[in-house]
Amino acid sequence: MSDSQNPSAEDSLIARYFKPLATDPGAFGLVDDAAVLSSSGDDIVVTTDAIVEGVHYLATDPPDTIARKALRVNLSDLAAKGAAPAGFVLTLALRSTEDSWLGLFADALGADAKSFGCPLLGGDTVSTPGPQMISITAFGRVPKGRMVGRTGARPGDLILVTGTIGDAALGLDVLTGGAAAAALASEPAARDVLVSRYRVPQPRNVLAQAVRDHATAAMDVSDGLAGDLTKLCAASGVSAIVDVARVPLSAAAADLIARNIVSVETLIAGGDDYEVLCTLPPAQSGALIAAGQAAGVAITAIGTIVAGHDQPRFLDRQGQELALKRLSYSHF
Amino acid sequence: MSDSQNPSAEDSLIARYFKPLATDPGAFGLVDDAAVLSSSGDDIVVTTDAIVEGVHYLATDPPDTIARKALRVNLSDLAAKGAAPAGFVLTLALRSTEDSWLGLFADALGADAKSFGCPLLGGDTVSTPGPQMISITAFGRVPKGRMVGRTGARPGDLILVTGTIGDAALGLDVLTGGAAAAALASEPAARDVLVSRYRVPQPRNVLAQAVRDHATAAMDVSDGLAGDLTKLCAASGVSAIVDVARVPLSAAAADLIARNIVSVETLIAGGDDYEVLCTLPPAQSGALIAAGQAAGVAITAIGTIVAGHDQPRFLDRQGQELALKRLSYSHF
Repeated sequence: MSDSQNPSAEDSLIARYFKPLATDPGAFGLVDDAAVLSSSGDDIVVTTDAIVEGVHYLATDPPDTIARKALRVNLSDLAAKGAAPAGFVLTLALRSTEDSWLGLFADALGADAKSFGCPLLGGDTVSTPGPQMISITAFGRVPKGRMVGRTGARPGDLILVTGTIGDAALGLDVLTGGAAAAALASEPAARDVLVSRYRVPQPRNVLAQAVRDHATAAMDVSDGLAGDLTKLCAASGVSAIVDVARVPLSAAAADLIARNIVSVETLIAGGDDYEVLCTLPPAQSGALIAAGQAAGVAITAIGTIVAGHDQPRFLDRQGQELALKRLSYSHF
Repeated sequence: MSDSQNPSAEDSLIARYFKPLATDPGAFGLVDDAAVLSSSGDDIVVTTDAIVEGVHYLATDPPDTIARKALRVNLSDLAAKGAAPAGFVLTLALRSTEDSWLGLFADALGADAKSFGCPLLGGDTVSTPGPQMISITAFGRVPKGRMVGRTGARPGDLILVTGTIGDAALGLDVLTGGAAAAALASEPAARDVLVSRYRVPQPRNVLAQAVRDHATAAMDVSDGLAGDLTKLCAASGVSAIVDVARVPLSAAAADLIARNIVSVETLIAGGDDYEVLCTLPPAQSGALIAAGQAAGVAITAIGTIVAGHDQPRFLDRQGQELALKRLSYSHF
């Protein structure tokens, strides 16, 4: 990002809204167009995720939740890799400079940057005639060679997932007037819970070290549990069996399934969960679950890694395999 | 970026076009959604620049030049910071998956990644209903504490610039049917030179070490020489006097000025040069210029840093100050 003393609108915008977020010395107060991640003997984990208006968030979403989602989808990746947040760079593609929008956006981004210990290091603002887009590249630190990958899952490992699955997909359904919206017409509290899960992910950074200490493989669930587990298994050269009845659901989600408003398949294939999916030997699971309890995050064993190269099987209470038509959300 | 064995279109796209570019071990062949920059005792320099269709490049530009520009505007930042390229992550916002476009784009990106020693580490592909956008975050390495900033310019330092200034602005003028297009109607070679300078920047990474060894401050010229020098001076708390007659021009640019088709003010305020602007004590200038000669890059002294906080003054042959109406290009 550029210097505030230049008269251009882009630079005044940066100074006004984003300089307060650049608290790390490596950000040089955004007067440079580059930042420094200092050497510390750790590996730097790099992850990048963009969110696009109308695709990953709705034009009607409040600017503060858009900011939080943009950063948190990246923080979620760092959590699943076992990395401690170190900072991020931001590319904002805006249609125009809307002061009120930007003020709310920057305030929320700054609040999350502070609470997650992930300061703004730099960025770029560009204008676009199209939809807004927010692209963030985030950095984390792990001890050398200790990033948790996707390739280490081994037959016999348990499969665990944090939090609950499917709420964000239901939240989007509520916001777009789907079946969940109608079913919850008189239940504003349930609607709010689900919408909040869609708009503001709860990345599990508090569990990063426990994931690093115990998991053989991990990733965050962003494109749907079924599709993401498929990716993890493919990367590890293994298969999996998931006990669908064990997949953790919120009260609101369980209620909608009980009422036949949605199917569990929809929730397992839905996106935007931003929970951690990981595998580990059974002997390690107690320690991870205990770490979750200490942090106030439920961690649930949902299945087992098995040998083979088939797609993971999702079995219902009767042992019947679910037919997941669309394994994961794809943007194309 | 995600795994190729998942059936989604996004993943097949990534596997087909981008996995071959992920030559660094820290990219994990793009099977993970995070990459690792390994620790080496060096500082990691981070820079991010996005280019938007219709704003930073034209919808009619060939996909190979768009790819090269997207990477090179970031490589140019690394060069000016004295950093050796270490890799990059890519966010591609596309309207749809156009195989022929993507193939040409990825091939050119891979060729540049190889020739500049800057491998793809990861990325994200998203769909957008709006214009295409390519956002790159690039990483470089410098010895600890040795990134060349903007704040070190001191009164008495010379101001130097690599290559020539203003060609890219003229190239855009040619492409958009401006005065230069008409004036060069019968000179296709000159038109091609200027258009090429707009579409494919020539970042000066070959000079990164010399810049690090000699410069007190440096940045790349991306938003126009006048505006960028203003930023550098403001960051350093100094002012400057530039001898406009010394600003290096290509033969095509000098000819258009001689014919009164364009003014030198326009070229000095134009953008997209992607040359290195730096300051250094006069005693160091010979070594930097010699490094440029060895690398085949002209480096020209154009002025002097002076004490004060005024905007830099650009003086013509008669010692008259140019009135630069628009100091630099702003996207807002």
